[in-house]
Amino acid sequence: MSRRRPLLRRSQLNLWLSRPPKLRTFAGLGAVILLLSATAGLAQGVEVPKDLNEVATSLQSLQVAANTIWVLFTACLVFFMNAGFCMLETGFCRPKNAVNLLAKNLIVFALSSISFWAIGFAIMFGDGNEFLGNSGFFLMGADNSPATGDAYKGVYSALSWTATPLLAKFFFQLVFAGTAATIVSGAVAERIKFYAFFAFSLLLVGISYPISGHWIWGGGWLAKLGFWDFAGSTVVHSVGGWAALMGAALLGPRIGRYTEDGGAVAIPGHNFAIATLGCLILWLGWFGFNPGSTMTADAGAIAHITVTTNMAAAFGGATATVVSTLYFGKPDLSMIINGILAGLVAITAPCAFVSIESAILIGIVAGIIIVFSVVYVDKLRIDDPVGAVSVHLVNGIWGTLSVGLFAAGPGQLYAEGLGPAKGLLLGGGTDQLWHQFIGVATVGLFTVIFATVAWFLIDKTIGIRVSPEEEIEGLDLGEHGMEAYAGFMFRDEVKGFVDLLKKMSVGR
Amino acid sequence: MSRRRPLLRRSQLNLWLSRPPKLRTFAGLGAVILLLSATAGLAQGVEVPKDLNEVATSLQSLQVAANTIWVLFTACLVFFMNAGFCMLETGFCRPKNAVNLLAKNLIVFALSSISFWAIGFAIMFGDGNEFLGNSGFFLMGADNSPATGDAYKGVYSALSWTATPLLAKFFFQLVFAGTAATIVSGAVAERIKFYAFFAFSLLLVGISYPISGHWIWGGGWLAKLGFWDFAGSTVVHSVGGWAALMGAALLGPRIGRYTEDGGAVAIPGHNFAIATLGCLILWLGWFGFNPGSTMTADAGAIAHITVTTNMAAAFGGATATVVSTLYFGKPDLSMIINGILAGLVAITAPCAFVSIESAILIGIVAGIIIVFSVVYVDKLRIDDPVGAVSVHLVNGIWGTLSVGLFAAGPGQLYAEGLGPAKGLLLGGGTDQLWHQFIGVATVGLFTVIFATVAWFLIDKTIGIRVSPEEEIEGLDLGEHGMEAYAGFMFRDEVKGFVDLLKKMSVGR
Amino acid sequence: MSRRRPLLRRSQLNLWLSRPPKLRTFAGLGAVILLLSATAGLAQGVEVPKDLNEVATSLQSLQVAANTIWVLFTACLVFFMNAGFCMLETGFCRPKNAVNLLAKNLIVFALSSISFWAIGFAIMFGDGNEFLGNSGFFLMGADNSPATGDAYKGVYSALSWTATPLLAKFFFQLVFAGTAATIVSGAVAERIKFYAFFAFSLLLVGISYPISGHWIWGGGWLAKLGFWDFAGSTVVHSVGGWAALMGAALLGPRIGRYTEDGGAVAIPGHNFAIATLGCLILWLGWFGFNPGSTMTADAGAIAHITVTTNMAAAFGGATATVVSTLYFGKPDLSMIINGILAGLVAITAPCAFVSIESAILIGIVAGIIIVFSVVYVDKLRIDDPVGAVSVHLVNGIWGTLSVGLFAAGPGQLYAEGLGPAKGLLLGGGTDQLWHQFIGVATVGLFTVIFATVAWFLIDKTIGIRVSPEEEIEGLDLGEHGMEAYAGFMFRDEVKGFVDLLKKMSVGR
Repeated sequence: MSRRRPLLRRSQLNLWLSRPPKLRTFAGLGAVILLLSATAGLAQGVEVPKDLNEVATSLQSLQVAANTIWVLFTACLVFFMNAGFCMLETGFCRPKNAVNLLAKNLIVFALSSISFWAIGFAIMFGDGNEFLGNSGFFLMGADNSPATGDAYKGVYSALSWTATPLLAKFFFQLVFAGTAATIVSGAVAERIKFYAFFAFSLLLVGISYPISGHWIWGGGWLAKLGFWDFAGSTVVHSVGGWAALMGAALLGPRIGRYTEDGGAVAIPGHNFAIATLGCLILWLGWFGFNPGSTMTADAGAIAHITVTTNMAAAFGGATATVVSTLYFGKPDLSMIINGILAGLVAITAPCAFVSIESAILIGIVAGIIIVFSVVYVDKLRIDDPVGAVSVHLVNGIWGTLSVGLFAAGPGQLYAEGLGPAKGLLLGGGTDQLWHQFIGVATVGLFTVIFATVAWFLIDKTIGIRVSPEEEIEGLDLGEHGMEAYAGFMFRDEVKGFVDLLKKMSVGR
Repeated sequence: MSRRRPLLRRSQLNLWLSRPPKLRTFAGLGAVILLLSATAGLAQGVEVPKDLNEVATSLQSLQVAANTIWVLFTACLVFFMNAGFCMLETGFCRPKNAVNLLAKNLIVFALSSISFWAIGFAIMFGDGNEFLGNSGFFLMGADNSPATGDAYKGVYSALSWTATPLLAKFFFQLVFAGTAATIVSGAVAERIKFYAFFAFSLLLVGISYPISGHWIWGGGWLAKLGFWDFAGSTVVHSVGGWAALMGAALLGPRIGRYTEDGGAVAIPGHNFAIATLGCLILWLGWFGFNPGSTMTADAGAIAHITVTTNMAAAFGGATATVVSTLYFGKPDLSMIINGILAGLVAITAPCAFVSIESAILIGIVAGIIIVFSVVYVDKLRIDDPVGAVSVHLVNGIWGTLSVGLFAAGPGQLYAEGLGPAKGLLLGGGTDQLWHQFIGVATVGLFTVIFATVAWFLIDKTIGIRVSPEEEIEGLDLGEHGMEAYAGFMFRDEVKGFVDLLKKMSVGR
Repeated sequence: MSRRRPLLRRSQLNLWLSRPPKLRTFAGLGAVILLLSATAGLAQGVEVPKDLNEVATSLQSLQVAANTIWVLFTACLVFFMNAGFCMLETGFCRPKNAVNLLAKNLIVFALSSISFWAIGFAIMFGDGNEFLGNSGFFLMGADNSPATGDAYKGVYSALSWTATPLLAKFFFQLVFAGTAATIVSGAVAERIKFYAFFAFSLLLVGISYPISGHWIWGGGWLAKLGFWDFAGSTVVHSVGGWAALMGAALLGPRIGRYTEDGGAVAIPGHNFAIATLGCLILWLGWFGFNPGSTMTADAGAIAHITVTTNMAAAFGGATATVVSTLYFGKPDLSMIINGILAGLVAITAPCAFVSIESAILIGIVAGIIIVFSVVYVDKLRIDDPVGAVSVHLVNGIWGTLSVGLFAAGPGQLYAEGLGPAKGLLLGGGTDQLWHQFIGVATVGLFTVIFATVAWFLIDKTIGIRVSPEEEIEGLDLGEHGMEAYAGFMFRDEVKGFVDLLKKMSVGR
């Protein structure tokens, strides 16, 4: 049999299955050594297809199986990002608010599931008009895959023409929708009411995210205009970032964060072990986020996207490490973390459309942007405890625009004329960059208006900010009646303890 | 080439492989920009099958590859649940027992691997009678897949007739067996001897779990009766739950847990950051647990099961959040966690047999049950530090019975007449519900008897409970001679510290 | 339709897609119950291949898709090992150095990505001579897979002759390279300068690791000699281990670690919760590390390797637990962790070549070795805070040699004459053992020389060890200007606190 025989390896498998006597000569092992003189060729029982029609059906079934495995595997990676955000945001905040952050980040995916199942998915991907879908609420409606004659909405339809089951596509889109809501959680941390966040998450994932998502991934007006966002720098990250920005701005800063004379007081995170774990989980999750957005097991595309994603993260992290060392004197761990995330957010839109070299440049720029953006947002006195605005909004915008700068051009990486026009830096003119800008601006404007109205309504009904007393005591006791780290002693307690000891001494 | 061409995308791949010059115009990049004028079509070197017989063999080989990837991927997710249980249980207990909980949850999968390899798998899936298998000990025996003429044991054989290798199936079943043992760990926490748990785990995974498992998944009498448990609400969770209940009851409560006047003293967990991480890992793991139980890459089935699983978890978590807020006044994080897990345990039996709407109802009921079950178990003065009995036993029973209420009926979701009869609430009569009840009762009875005898024997030989002195000092020092968080200061230490300072003051 | 029909399940899928009315009789649910009378057979729209040539191309495309899914899935598992090492190493050290350990373990994969992309991959797998490759720098060069006529370098070429995309193979090899660098991090912990580690990682991953890797996996002289290392006991683990040993030896022990009279003072780790999590993540990651090294979705091979890997880990962990109980009196958690890792490192070289029974023996020996090795390294006064030398170097050597003892022989587990000669304990003579020894010795010698020169150069330029003052204060403040656990109180602080209180009392 030729070494180059490209398929099947039947003989290999047969040999395998007829496993040879093993360890036979190693007499000391007794019963363990008695062995399978195993049997039976795999080939027996194989039913031979009658004609090429049957072969075609078999081939399609296998293609659908491969695509569905890919979609579910990558969806699982993206689902796991909930754990990443949960650990990252909790670690970046204070221990007295840890339960609240954990609870928010845990329940938010449950809420996203409810909201996106009931209405979000229908608005985003259902049939409708250029502005929103209006069919398929509660997952009721025919499978909108091309094989059933009902085209999967969105510009990427050519990538998913095999009939990946509707529910696999739904689950994949659901974990994306969940990400947008999670982004908000970090920026509003340490002062928001639990049920206010609960309500906002339902609105964001049920209404706002799917409307702007429909424009881009649901075949809406931005898709038709020629705006391209492969895996969601705008659809997911800048939408989450805008909502986070408005939440942080409307809530106002945490007590003690800014002084009256214009100074800023850093409030350090309490657990960088889990924060770093969170960053690594998010990095892992992005290998689902970006390559999974093909929604087909297209070997060349998923390998390419995996590597562009990783190189942008690596260069983003390394650049932010060096830049923050130059700028602050020492490599700050939170900057390393945010530099990696900045690279990942930025490469999300262009990951499938750009070369590896371009991905590296996009990551380097993201790693520079993040350091200065964190400083600048702080100057605006917008208190964003985890840097969500700088990571997701600012780099979401950068990543979306970078498509207009670096895209390899249609028919280059993705076949058959699909994809953005050649980018400006590759000699492709400014058209694509302009389309990207229109998408950034309109999605931003819409999300800002929606989020402002939503936060305002929630504030007028159940209120969005906890009382100053509760904020000082910590939201864990106030909102949940429990502590995150029962038994541990905290420095805050020492002050009262010193006072107690003074009294003891005095009383003696 | 037509857009609708459903297979292959050869031209796409070729285009991909012959990657175009990239960034050519971006002259500043020097060497980086020199580029592949890459080569060679994929198609060259492809060996063409001689006839449809060869095509059939190739198709089967690919199907086996897809199934095996699916089985190993989902098995990895289930394996990861060990980390989930480990973090969850440790976080729910006190810091002085953290090393002990970590050590138990780490070694338990090693023990399960040994026990299930040596005898468990043979008892559960080997040829034998309706009550237990008796061949294939130490993995010796022919591959029991249909293609080798030796039917894979169990009622789901129709789903796995392609020859997934025996060892892939073994590994998948092993990670399930490990789960059952892990469940016990939480309920007996903070007072059990390390080697007593060690011994019980070997017995449970080697003998008890596989015997009742044989009845249901090994082609035994319950399978023949028509009892259905798709992924193990009974086989895994209620078996683990019964063993946990008996362990917790026989050990008695932790010192100080219940007062003489009938009151209960809550003992708070020490690390909700890792507990929440554990819950998210378990949620992720369930996307292996349930959809992986198909053991084939059946696109429609695995997508459906993924979504039923997720929706039950989401509604379980959201319901428990609201119910616990109404009942206790505030949303308790441990209730959110346990609500999600309750929904997941409950949907495990019916996940493949019910619609998404039914899954949502099953999750809502689970989210209600969990709150009241935790309260009720506490009233019985059974001290279950992590709520394992309420999550795994009570909701394992609910999930198993829910098959009899909500099953869509044979030939509806799974083809060819397999699956439970139509459920009572869909107009299907009480037969299926009765069969489910018989399974719940007999497996429960058997496990209770086995666990009682096993715990009793271990108590008479090496003893099951640590001394009161060791329990008060903490099992970490007593059983392992080490601390989990060396360097941190704990509130317990402050009392002695105050005494020391008093002495200092007096001595002056 | 026959139950035994081995492929396709078209009727099943069709039935599935035409989902039946669900819950129709459960009238209380309102809108939820309205239902899909869904549509459309899957088969419509299938394009029928014209002849067997088209079938062949389709089959190959599917095979490539399956292989690429497998490679990327397992690469993701290996990537996740970065989180495992990060949590393990950080947990085993003191809280005052936690940020430094987290930062090193986070940035190291970014650095590996840069270094391996730029030069490492080309040296390891590019065309060249028997000692190093010299083409494909910056990923420029034709896809070196056989289908493109440019054979993938290395002895395992027969396993990857289908055209898995170059970038998928690159990413898989990259995550391996990253592992080698991470191993070093633990051994040099708590006293190395951040940028010294930064520089060493770039050199190790860019030059040293790929050179010795080329000898073995790149078709170099050791491969031609007949040295076999399936997944990297030598290529990855002992290389990382040698570099770690030299780093630890050249840095010298931590202050206070050894007393003048020859005694050793144990410095306990500060967070065994994350350390245990790290161990479980690493165990999970090894299900990518070893089975993924097939780089094809070869069902029999990947299932076999998964089980050998797991059984060695399980027996390694259980053996170390028992041995450490016998030796130290109590089961030490760090020994359970290191026993599992020892089993995993040892089985890495032989995993594909040995039976399950042999894997168990290899794991048992690893579990014994680890306990005595940790004690012995300590006697040499080489201060290795996490036991990296014992886990990765000593057991890497043991695993590599075990191929010569236990290999089943060529044509037994892997077909067509590939693989090591039959091992000594199976009656195969000493040739293979001798080849394994030559590989261990030459790779060790090369890495020791390289690492010594590299550490020396770095010491002479930026210095490798922090000042004693910084070491005592902690590297977190010294190197990064931040704390890992802000807000928590540590026992170290109590001494100063007592002094403060004394002063207060005096001053009164």
